[in-house]
Amino acid sequence: MWYDIPALSKLTESFARLPGIGRKSARRLAFYMLSVPKEEAEAFAADIIDAVQKIRRCKICQNLSDTEICPVCRNSQRDHGIICVVEHPQDMMAIEKTGKFNGLYHVLHGVISPAAGVKPQDLTIQQLVDRVNETHPSEIILATNQTSDGRATKLYLQNLLAPLNVKLSQPSYGIPVGSDIEFTDEITLSLALEGRWEL
Amino acid sequence: MWYDIPALSKLTESFARLPGIGRKSARRLAFYMLSVPKEEAEAFAADIIDAVQKIRRCKICQNLSDTEICPVCRNSQRDHGIICVVEHPQDMMAIEKTGKFNGLYHVLHGVISPAAGVKPQDLTIQQLVDRVNETHPSEIILATNQTSDGRATKLYLQNLLAPLNVKLSQPSYGIPVGSDIEFTDEITLSLALEGRWEL
Repeated sequence: MWYDIPALSKLTESFARLPGIGRKSARRLAFYMLSVPKEEAEAFAADIIDAVQKIRRCKICQNLSDTEICPVCRNSQRDHGIICVVEHPQDMMAIEKTGKFNGLYHVLHGVISPAAGVKPQDLTIQQLVDRVNETHPSEIILATNQTSDGRATKLYLQNLLAPLNVKLSQPSYGIPVGSDIEFTDEITLSLALEGRWEL
Repeated sequence: MWYDIPALSKLTESFARLPGIGRKSARRLAFYMLSVPKEEAEAFAADIIDAVQKIRRCKICQNLSDTEICPVCRNSQRDHGIICVVEHPQDMMAIEKTGKFNGLYHVLHGVISPAAGVKPQDLTIQQLVDRVNETHPSEIILATNQTSDGRATKLYLQNLLAPLNVKLSQPSYGIPVGSDIEFTDEITLSLALEGRWEL
């Protein structure tokens, strides 16, 4: 059939492997690539190669960086005694946007997930332990997500870090600002009541 | 701020330019590219470059092809006297899937659209006229979409091709198979009544 152009099928498959891109979108994107000027498609490919070649993990916090040590870890104005452990670079981005956290980070690059076959050694947990042993921070905030894998990972880290003589904490969970008690899910609501703040 | 990594921002922008990819998806895709093994991201970039370098337009029908003349135009079993004019390669793909059309195609690569600034000379209309003058087909099916731009383009082609002494036709429009009259939109229903088939 006319439309079995191997290079086109291969490009469609490649797009379909991206997260959140279904088969129809993948085909649309592949056709789009062939509809724009060749230079534009080549520039897109070059941007991918440039990014994967320039961006690596910061030697200290394991966050993405185009320098060996990321700007946060290099910044002497920040509190190097507090480490906030997050799952993904995007989580760190969200916390940075608040402008309210002045410590350092540690990016796990995932969560322990038996279902997805992700083991502790697939994450940057060893680097975290080494870092704690070397730098002796005063506090570690375990800011994994409130999912079952996130909670299990938090518990795993809690057990692992407890003997290292460091204060462990986690962000408070509760009713999101601007939302109604009526529409807050049961788990959040029970956490919010359990962890109630004194007035 | 830590997350202003130029190569990452550039890749995010590139993804955001793709059709149907919003800013949040673009960021997610850029982070995804950096989370997979480097070789995988480079292979994706290579697939893009491979596709845009190998795939061009068929010299005859202007459809995408990895050969100078596409397999449909090369096929002597097909009726070279009928040309079905479509907007996009995807339209041709849809018609080929029916297995009911044995003629050739002509792909316009768009529609005339004053709103989007697409003029007749931006499409493969001149190639169609040249082709008709050279090959003298017996019939041309104008299968542009039933949108206002598609209909305007059909009318434009109709006026342009009328003096060339070729039979012009269009696919019938009407009630889709399997749907109810009750739920058919007014325009389709009125077209279906106007173009009613004798029993």
